[in-house]
Amino acid sequence: MMIMEKTKKFILPETEIPTQWYNVTAEMKNKPQPMINPQTKEPLKAEDLYPLFAEELSRQEMNQTDAWIDIPEEVREKYKIYRPSPLVRATALERALDTPAHIYFKNESVSPVGSHKLNSALPQAYYNKIEGTTNITTETGAGQWGTALSFAAKTFGLELAVYMVKISYEQKPYRRSLMQTWGAQVIPSPSMSTKAGRKILTEHPNYQGSLGTAISEAIELAMQTPKCKYTLGSVLNHVALHQTIIGLEAEKQMAMADEYPDVVIGCFGGGSNFSGISFPFLRHNIAGKTTTRFIAAEPASCPKLTRGEFRYDFGDETGYTPLIPMYTLGHKFAPANIHAGGLRYHGAGSIVSQLLKEKLIEAVSVKQLETFEAGVLFARTEGIVPAPESTHAIAVAVREALKAKEEGKKKVILFNLSGHGLVDMAAYDQYLAGDLTNHEVSDEEIARFLAES
Amino acid sequence: MMIMEKTKKFILPETEIPTQWYNVTAEMKNKPQPMINPQTKEPLKAEDLYPLFAEELSRQEMNQTDAWIDIPEEVREKYKIYRPSPLVRATALERALDTPAHIYFKNESVSPVGSHKLNSALPQAYYNKIEGTTNITTETGAGQWGTALSFAAKTFGLELAVYMVKISYEQKPYRRSLMQTWGAQVIPSPSMSTKAGRKILTEHPNYQGSLGTAISEAIELAMQTPKCKYTLGSVLNHVALHQTIIGLEAEKQMAMADEYPDVVIGCFGGGSNFSGISFPFLRHNIAGKTTTRFIAAEPASCPKLTRGEFRYDFGDETGYTPLIPMYTLGHKFAPANIHAGGLRYHGAGSIVSQLLKEKLIEAVSVKQLETFEAGVLFARTEGIVPAPESTHAIAVAVREALKAKEEGKKKVILFNLSGHGLVDMAAYDQYLAGDLTNHEVSDEEIARFLAES
Repeated sequence: MMIMEKTKKFILPETEIPTQWYNVTAEMKNKPQPMINPQTKEPLKAEDLYPLFAEELSRQEMNQTDAWIDIPEEVREKYKIYRPSPLVRATALERALDTPAHIYFKNESVSPVGSHKLNSALPQAYYNKIEGTTNITTETGAGQWGTALSFAAKTFGLELAVYMVKISYEQKPYRRSLMQTWGAQVIPSPSMSTKAGRKILTEHPNYQGSLGTAISEAIELAMQTPKCKYTLGSVLNHVALHQTIIGLEAEKQMAMADEYPDVVIGCFGGGSNFSGISFPFLRHNIAGKTTTRFIAAEPASCPKLTRGEFRYDFGDETGYTPLIPMYTLGHKFAPANIHAGGLRYHGAGSIVSQLLKEKLIEAVSVKQLETFEAGVLFARTEGIVPAPESTHAIAVAVREALKAKEEGKKKVILFNLSGHGLVDMAAYDQYLAGDLTNHEVSDEEIARFLAES
Repeated sequence: MMIMEKTKKFILPETEIPTQWYNVTAEMKNKPQPMINPQTKEPLKAEDLYPLFAEELSRQEMNQTDAWIDIPEEVREKYKIYRPSPLVRATALERALDTPAHIYFKNESVSPVGSHKLNSALPQAYYNKIEGTTNITTETGAGQWGTALSFAAKTFGLELAVYMVKISYEQKPYRRSLMQTWGAQVIPSPSMSTKAGRKILTEHPNYQGSLGTAISEAIELAMQTPKCKYTLGSVLNHVALHQTIIGLEAEKQMAMADEYPDVVIGCFGGGSNFSGISFPFLRHNIAGKTTTRFIAAEPASCPKLTRGEFRYDFGDETGYTPLIPMYTLGHKFAPANIHAGGLRYHGAGSIVSQLLKEKLIEAVSVKQLETFEAGVLFARTEGIVPAPESTHAIAVAVREALKAKEEGKKKVILFNLSGHGLVDMAAYDQYLAGDLTNHEVSDEEIARFLAES
């Protein structure tokens, strides 16, 4: 018999899909500072958000008191299309690294849209629908959020317009096709369809777009259209809330494996999947029961957590959003055209920013070539080709596993595989052909963008 | 509360992954006629296949006596990466069609390579490895088989060269990238690297390739390389055998749903996924216990089952394979460039051909536009964007469901979702833009190719 590693996959029954999301702010000793209404300069109230977001989402956004929020039955029903997602022990990767570490990953790539984004797209579409919204708008970077919302909007009977960052629109045509197949309208951003888009195109005709600009455009369209609301796929508290379903399931599955993570890792754009995998475990740290480390893995070319400034900033390029207390590179920051389009965002959500300020979580940055090296190794061992975003988490998991090997000690590592890369193969092509490069940003550039913002 | 359909997914525990494959030939009253050695004109013996295939695979190919063949423990371990695959009741599709039919699909798209092909790729790589093979070759049409074998070869430590049908190589660059990411070498076929390829390129310089030609090239390379064997992803009996894991799991899952299929549907290229979903249920028909219908769904542009001839023919374009008793359009048949590249094959496996001849199964053909219409409807209801091949099965399931509505009676329909279409989005783009057309083949063309072959 050939000697091979065992395949270890931990599957929960559907009855174990959580019935509530976890709201970490309710249990944080120091709450995030309030968002600020830029007109009144007053702390934001839920009602201030009603013109923009569904009312229930606005209330979730401001809720700092209830640790558990019920998941509507209709949303939980649709979660069953792909949930519970598997937890997998990456035994073939462990063997390839020859490490004593145990590496687990939560496989969010099994959703039909290919990523964790559906976890928040479904409730966002649902709440809008029951409140009488007929149309929604959004932005998308790599296209993961846009594809998820396209299917969610179709499921609950809403029309959807997606502003897609232009560089991704061109680099990732398959994601555009996916959105259209699910029935959404897709517009490359910056576009001439909004004031925000026209302004930036006038000033920078060749600008390849950013999430910040696309958000401005999607907000503007929503504000000008009756029965139309805006939705966002990351950064905001209610998005992190919905994503906690990842960590809540993973907690039960780690118990099935009879282990508990020493380190939890997620890639980091605005914070949605990192928050989702981390917060449910973090609550045991907050309660003083565990000392798990939480590592956000961001691209070296967009290093808001490791090299940004903590301050109030806008969530979008034009300044339509409330002011958010965040680690930021400045809302005018124009990131390099890396393939991990979903991580090309200037700021971090307010909860994650507060946690980082208090050192309750950590952050590291990874260069593009290291992420693809890790991604190819993962594909060749575990079989799944990871999204360029997710490869950041894998790269940091590999670092931690190799450190465990050096130190000769067992360590339990858990990372979130936020999505697969089947529609990002052009990026792998470039990597395998040796045509990919690292992109770094200088201190001077960061200082300049912060000063401009 | 919003009134919506329930999501119904049937999940087996890993312990229920079958431990044996089902060999339908052992229970067929009339066995398929023997394959013929074209040199000796004698019925083929297993040993005749040893130069080409792993010995155990050769024996499986010729086995007409054992109804159950053990799955090696190492293969079953690797099956756990994605198996058991879910059985899903397509409640949202049913609602959209307003049909009394219950529509179930077996979701083979959950494999990391995106299709059912891994079910046979893993055992084929495994048997080659333990018999001392170091290199394997194969062909691929749409790329589903090539990607599966790339990961399987990497898993068991074999080098792999894939001849990819040129039209797919160009239409589906992401599948080429996938194979390369998993470490395989990919050559567009026809190529100048083999006699077979050079001959056809000389005669038809712009020939876009076919599975038949790619098979010839892969066989030729294997025959000329030491410790190198050839592998095939469809048509042959041992491939159908491995794929029965689909139907064996589905049988258990239908029991969980407390239903039994009146109709079983699979798309049809060479027969692998159709055989896989059908044979385990067919055995109850053979035993006289059930009267389930089995429908093979083939493209109108490559209608070997509905308009081909039953006769001995080669499995490849050049004539390197044994003579196989099959429904065929002639081994020189050059199919139109439809997007369902995996169904562009001139012949059918010998078991399926025998079953069709005896009317134990049925076949229908579907035009390209109807398949994409069904595929988009499926994506918008069930969330999964199906492979262009799989849309043929969906289209026939939709026909059957609408017939049930007309007749006002309940009917239980089961189809195999052989794979997802995430790397086939260019095809959906064309469909949504109105640029796709139907391709039909005239009786004269069929007669001409049959005469030439």
